[in-house]
Amino acid sequence: MPHSPDRLTDPRFSQAVEELLGSYVSQGGINHIEGHNLPTQETVHAIIRELEAVLFPGYYEAERLGRRNARYVIGERCARIFHQLAQEVAKSLEHTERCETAGDEVSGPRAEMRGEQIAMELLEALPAIRELLHEDAQAAVDGDPAARSIVEVLLSYPSVRAIGIFRVAHFLHGKQVPLIPRMMTEYVHARTGIDIHPGATIGAGLFIDHGTGVVIGETAKIGKRCKIYQGVTLGALSVERHGEPGWKPQQRHPTLEDHVTVYAGATILGGRTVIGEGSVIGGNVWLTRSVPPGTKVQIEPPYLIYRAKGSEPVKEAIDYAI
Amino acid sequence: MPHSPDRLTDPRFSQAVEELLGSYVSQGGINHIEGHNLPTQETVHAIIRELEAVLFPGYYEAERLGRRNARYVIGERCARIFHQLAQEVAKSLEHTERCETAGDEVSGPRAEMRGEQIAMELLEALPAIRELLHEDAQAAVDGDPAARSIVEVLLSYPSVRAIGIFRVAHFLHGKQVPLIPRMMTEYVHARTGIDIHPGATIGAGLFIDHGTGVVIGETAKIGKRCKIYQGVTLGALSVERHGEPGWKPQQRHPTLEDHVTVYAGATILGGRTVIGEGSVIGGNVWLTRSVPPGTKVQIEPPYLIYRAKGSEPVKEAIDYAI
Amino acid sequence: MPHSPDRLTDPRFSQAVEELLGSYVSQGGINHIEGHNLPTQETVHAIIRELEAVLFPGYYEAERLGRRNARYVIGERCARIFHQLAQEVAKSLEHTERCETAGDEVSGPRAEMRGEQIAMELLEALPAIRELLHEDAQAAVDGDPAARSIVEVLLSYPSVRAIGIFRVAHFLHGKQVPLIPRMMTEYVHARTGIDIHPGATIGAGLFIDHGTGVVIGETAKIGKRCKIYQGVTLGALSVERHGEPGWKPQQRHPTLEDHVTVYAGATILGGRTVIGEGSVIGGNVWLTRSVPPGTKVQIEPPYLIYRAKGSEPVKEAIDYAI
Repeated sequence: MPHSPDRLTDPRFSQAVEELLGSYVSQGGINHIEGHNLPTQETVHAIIRELEAVLFPGYYEAERLGRRNARYVIGERCARIFHQLAQEVAKSLEHTERCETAGDEVSGPRAEMRGEQIAMELLEALPAIRELLHEDAQAAVDGDPAARSIVEVLLSYPSVRAIGIFRVAHFLHGKQVPLIPRMMTEYVHARTGIDIHPGATIGAGLFIDHGTGVVIGETAKIGKRCKIYQGVTLGALSVERHGEPGWKPQQRHPTLEDHVTVYAGATILGGRTVIGEGSVIGGNVWLTRSVPPGTKVQIEPPYLIYRAKGSEPVKEAIDYAI
Repeated sequence: MPHSPDRLTDPRFSQAVEELLGSYVSQGGINHIEGHNLPTQETVHAIIRELEAVLFPGYYEAERLGRRNARYVIGERCARIFHQLAQEVAKSLEHTERCETAGDEVSGPRAEMRGEQIAMELLEALPAIRELLHEDAQAAVDGDPAARSIVEVLLSYPSVRAIGIFRVAHFLHGKQVPLIPRMMTEYVHARTGIDIHPGATIGAGLFIDHGTGVVIGETAKIGKRCKIYQGVTLGALSVERHGEPGWKPQQRHPTLEDHVTVYAGATILGGRTVIGEGSVIGGNVWLTRSVPPGTKVQIEPPYLIYRAKGSEPVKEAIDYAI
Repeated sequence: MPHSPDRLTDPRFSQAVEELLGSYVSQGGINHIEGHNLPTQETVHAIIRELEAVLFPGYYEAERLGRRNARYVIGERCARIFHQLAQEVAKSLEHTERCETAGDEVSGPRAEMRGEQIAMELLEALPAIRELLHEDAQAAVDGDPAARSIVEVLLSYPSVRAIGIFRVAHFLHGKQVPLIPRMMTEYVHARTGIDIHPGATIGAGLFIDHGTGVVIGETAKIGKRCKIYQGVTLGALSVERHGEPGWKPQQRHPTLEDHVTVYAGATILGGRTVIGEGSVIGGNVWLTRSVPPGTKVQIEPPYLIYRAKGSEPVKEAIDYAI
């Protein structure tokens, strides 16, 4: 039977559609029908692109920026950010309040007003965010011997753009905006492999080199001018839940003080773990307790087993420095 | 010499094009000219987006779904899935059969019919797949203390969407569809860093947290309600090839029984390796043999070498719990 | 107060825009206003897609290629590559020369001519690059027991496409093109998690399986027919900077001779580290010194601590083979 449009009047097809529709009733949660609007990924991603264009003007857009047009181009972008973000924040607030207040009437206008207020506050915060990003960019140039210039870092390194979006998400997280901050950091995660929770606190001048596989948890704290390589986890040791009886918002993830370097694949866990200022954590170290400032930590050099052709295996320690 | 369109009548340019065309003849394999059609990435990706819109309706699309329009919107999407998938499956079958039957005539209509049949079976399987995905979403909410709701998980975690596309790819893989299942899981891999072969068998309620760097091999088996963190490999020990003399389809990748947790960076290898029910495999463990139910496995706490400023290096064991 | 367009005549909004514009003056570097043009990501990505379409014709485009239309389709693509690349290279040269010659006048026409020359040389180099890619594709088929054919490898493995773009970026890097080679390899990094610096030297027949988290540094050298798994780092030990007094371009990253295999998560560091021909480096090995040809290196099997329910922890060594 060749492919035919009549196939769709086929009772088997109609039956399949009806059963799928039925499953939306029986398997709630993973569908969202007749619900209030949710923030949409498409709009959140559009906001991110506009934000990058005003945070790093002249770098990612084809249009050329000069003294004459900058005010208009940037003003227009800010207006778009304001309107779109205000609307998405309002949707996100309405959704979450309805869910959490279990049936209480929540006024749409109040959510809209709050959305506008937060969007305005973000615009006002952008110069301060740019100050931090300038230090992040400088840290990348200083931190990678292969980097030639800030221009190269902005055009071809994931670090500064990832941290830029994180810093915006962190601002919104601080204003108790639901959903959107995590949507923003997941956008970064998908594009860079760097997964930073918007709740993390990160000082000026962070450089994340290569970055794939980096995980920075919700309550991690990172001081100024730290450097982190690919595959580093700043994670939790124990699992306690939001809203469970006895739950208090406490620090579950570690603290890096200023000028700490963490090499590739290292794992640092626990909210009481503090890595003292200027410490260097070697590659593949698994650390669950604090170290004082100026400490270098490394795993004991592993024994290697050499099996050269035609001879017995030889076990040997290797010596290496971090 | 300024840039000029005449450049293209330049004999050097023509010569370069001719040599490139010549290389299509001399370097076969990596070009596909005068071949039968292959499934195209663009269409496979479009099918994936339609599938996500009917598996998780109301989450990823700007359009608002209500009781009145749901039947039509979903019906239309299912029709598009049906037609596009039937066609791509047919192309994929035709291609593979021609290659494998070495010149035998394969009837196009038979491939088309088989394509329609498989596409219809997939539509019919969607409610059952949604049941599994509902458990996957619930597992994510249960498994991450930072997760507030299923809505947050669906909007901003890679786990459920990745497993959703995997479950569709696995269904098609079970119907012996060539090429398309791997194209689907590679779409997931590119967007999330989670690389699951469509041949893997995965029970309900899997949660993959963060996920970057996860690799789950072709013959791996995962029970119900398992939890896997970033950088985990379920891999093969030995390499035997499809089609080699003596090759039998055997299990080359490990089995996780129900309720197993595998922490970040752990590597579990081999088809005879079975991780017993409820076991916990600690971070960075490298495991190539079975463990009984209820076992906790961890690497021996590494010695760390502390080098505080101005003092001799101190070697110390650290103690940590998984 | 409901959302209103008048919001934008609000003095608070205007003030926010003015302060953002002010920050472009005070925080230089991360904005690019009144500057000469930079290469744009959009165009560089468009060039990459055209290059993939001529390197692997018939695989990624919806259009069907046959003997009759191939010359025209490919010729047109080559013309677009030529024009776009010539222009982006010219922008990139102008930018860099202006920065580095500190105010010297650099003639636009000279940069344009050099751009055209390099673009033409790349077109002429494509057949040789395809020869290497053909071996890379064959290595993938040979190296993965789950791979059925070159078609499957090209449609659903990240390896060959990633190496394809790398090989083009490496060619441009060899011609001293600034910025664009790194933009190209970062495009690959974002899509595959494979981060190869365009300066690396890579022989024919490289297979990178899974690939997420792989990092290959600027001066690494890889021989023929090597195989690398996810999470492998070929990195630097020490940090010396371009342009610092006494800096000489030296090898900072390791050398793999022919037929070397490096398993998942292994880290090999240092410019004087040479892995001899045919060696096998086991998973998670951390290696900072050379090994002779034919050597197998593995970490000492870690002790595992088994904690079965209701019994004392048992420490046991495990034995495994690479």
